[in-house]
Amino acid sequence: MPPTNTFAGAAIDRVSDRRQDDAWIGEQLRSPTARAIVVSHEGPFVDCTSDPCRPAFVAAADIDDPVFLGRDADGPLFATAGDHVPGAYTAMSLRDAGARMSQADAGLLAYATAIVGWHGSHGFCARCGHATDLAAAGHERRCPSCGATHHPRTDPVVIMLVHDGDRVLLGRQARWPEGRYSTLAGFVEPGESLEEAVAREVGEESGIAVTDIRYRSSQPWPFPASLMVGFHARYANGEPSVHDGELEDVRWFSRQEVRDAANGQSMLHLPPPVAIARRLIDEWLED
Amino acid sequence: MPPTNTFAGAAIDRVSDRRQDDAWIGEQLRSPTARAIVVSHEGPFVDCTSDPCRPAFVAAADIDDPVFLGRDADGPLFATAGDHVPGAYTAMSLRDAGARMSQADAGLLAYATAIVGWHGSHGFCARCGHATDLAAAGHERRCPSCGATHHPRTDPVVIMLVHDGDRVLLGRQARWPEGRYSTLAGFVEPGESLEEAVAREVGEESGIAVTDIRYRSSQPWPFPASLMVGFHARYANGEPSVHDGELEDVRWFSRQEVRDAANGQSMLHLPPPVAIARRLIDEWLED
Repeated sequence: MPPTNTFAGAAIDRVSDRRQDDAWIGEQLRSPTARAIVVSHEGPFVDCTSDPCRPAFVAAADIDDPVFLGRDADGPLFATAGDHVPGAYTAMSLRDAGARMSQADAGLLAYATAIVGWHGSHGFCARCGHATDLAAAGHERRCPSCGATHHPRTDPVVIMLVHDGDRVLLGRQARWPEGRYSTLAGFVEPGESLEEAVAREVGEESGIAVTDIRYRSSQPWPFPASLMVGFHARYANGEPSVHDGELEDVRWFSRQEVRDAANGQSMLHLPPPVAIARRLIDEWLED
Repeated sequence: MPPTNTFAGAAIDRVSDRRQDDAWIGEQLRSPTARAIVVSHEGPFVDCTSDPCRPAFVAAADIDDPVFLGRDADGPLFATAGDHVPGAYTAMSLRDAGARMSQADAGLLAYATAIVGWHGSHGFCARCGHATDLAAAGHERRCPSCGATHHPRTDPVVIMLVHDGDRVLLGRQARWPEGRYSTLAGFVEPGESLEEAVAREVGEESGIAVTDIRYRSSQPWPFPASLMVGFHARYANGEPSVHDGELEDVRWFSRQEVRDAANGQSMLHLPPPVAIARRLIDEWLED
């Protein structure tokens, strides 16, 4: 099995075949065990009164525009947008939550954040411009004017560790903290396979041609709506140089330099464990 | 390298770093070698005066709302929507084009169809409802009212061959031609990895639990905007039965039954070679 990355692993049955069943969804919402996760503009509300933090679960009966996430071991679970909740809960960025929670809880918050965020930025019909309504228990939006049905958006992104056996190609963006380098990445475009996207993005960002493109694992990355699809790829030819303005530097690092950085003994700062980029690097170090 | 599936393989440099450069895009459009692919409601216009068919290339100077696809060996290439073109060209469904053209030409038409289709169904701002304008040479739409930038949508879909070593799990939808069975598939949802989507969809559609989920290859599938991500997965437990109403039947087929069907000697009809589903099946037969 591929590794389970942070933000995957929500322990929930989505019960997707009942989303259209308004009566059943209503029963779930009125259940005494129904809870909701509230997502603010700063991130989901969390409960840090014990360690590790957990999602803050509020009574589902009190929320507006409930999105049905599914059923977990404790009963029905909903999500909604909001900047206040009753009780001593605080909002936390999803990235921080991912680093401070169990795999399953971080996955749950990623799911809630992704779908609540979609509603917040897709209130109007892209086809005709009319205001749309929440439908299918929050898994669709429907247009009362033209009849279009809209589904949550998930944007596939390829992210790839390029290596030549001994060295790995990493780049950095100008806005990143000093010393931070990471693997290259970019959005999949219309009319290309994942492998074509890998080759194109590496070429665009570094001038390097790659071969032997191998899938490794994937990660939901709702910032706001990405799905990271991770690869290793082997260097074929070219000299690394900044090409398209996305990066301010791109260059080779030796296995020893990367190993030192992974051990915290370097000016080179690798991405944190929460990111699939780090996992792609760690797996290469282990190879 | 993974296999190249139909609709991948467009032989074009997308020159994505120049899309924002209006002056350079204008030069490309005015080039005497600039050509355009026109996509109608029935599919792209094609030239079948010789065999195999090729995309119908019209003069780019004549088109409205040009989308810059990139540069191929013959010069700049654009795409646009239209139901008429000069000359003896006909519109063909993209599926038919995929079965009757070279890999590179089918890839080019998939790219053109995907991005032209996106413009056709996303003329308004999902954030505020205002009409949006084509921008970045057709790779964005921008809202003059709220300032939002919108990018083409690509919907990741997992498609998976489930097997137990000797048998393969295939399902059929009621609307399919008699005897047609195929691999299970479904859209990736917010907050899940590709592997989670595979396990969830197989469970929802058949009641089967799977393990050993292995990526195989991917395929752009612009009907209208999917990216098919193909897996093999091994049966863990459960008895196949129709679960969620998407399928009218789901059941095991023996290796011999599938082999006979692949050879056209069966009442079982497998998906055509244009689909990654068939490739997943053929690769399993070869294992």
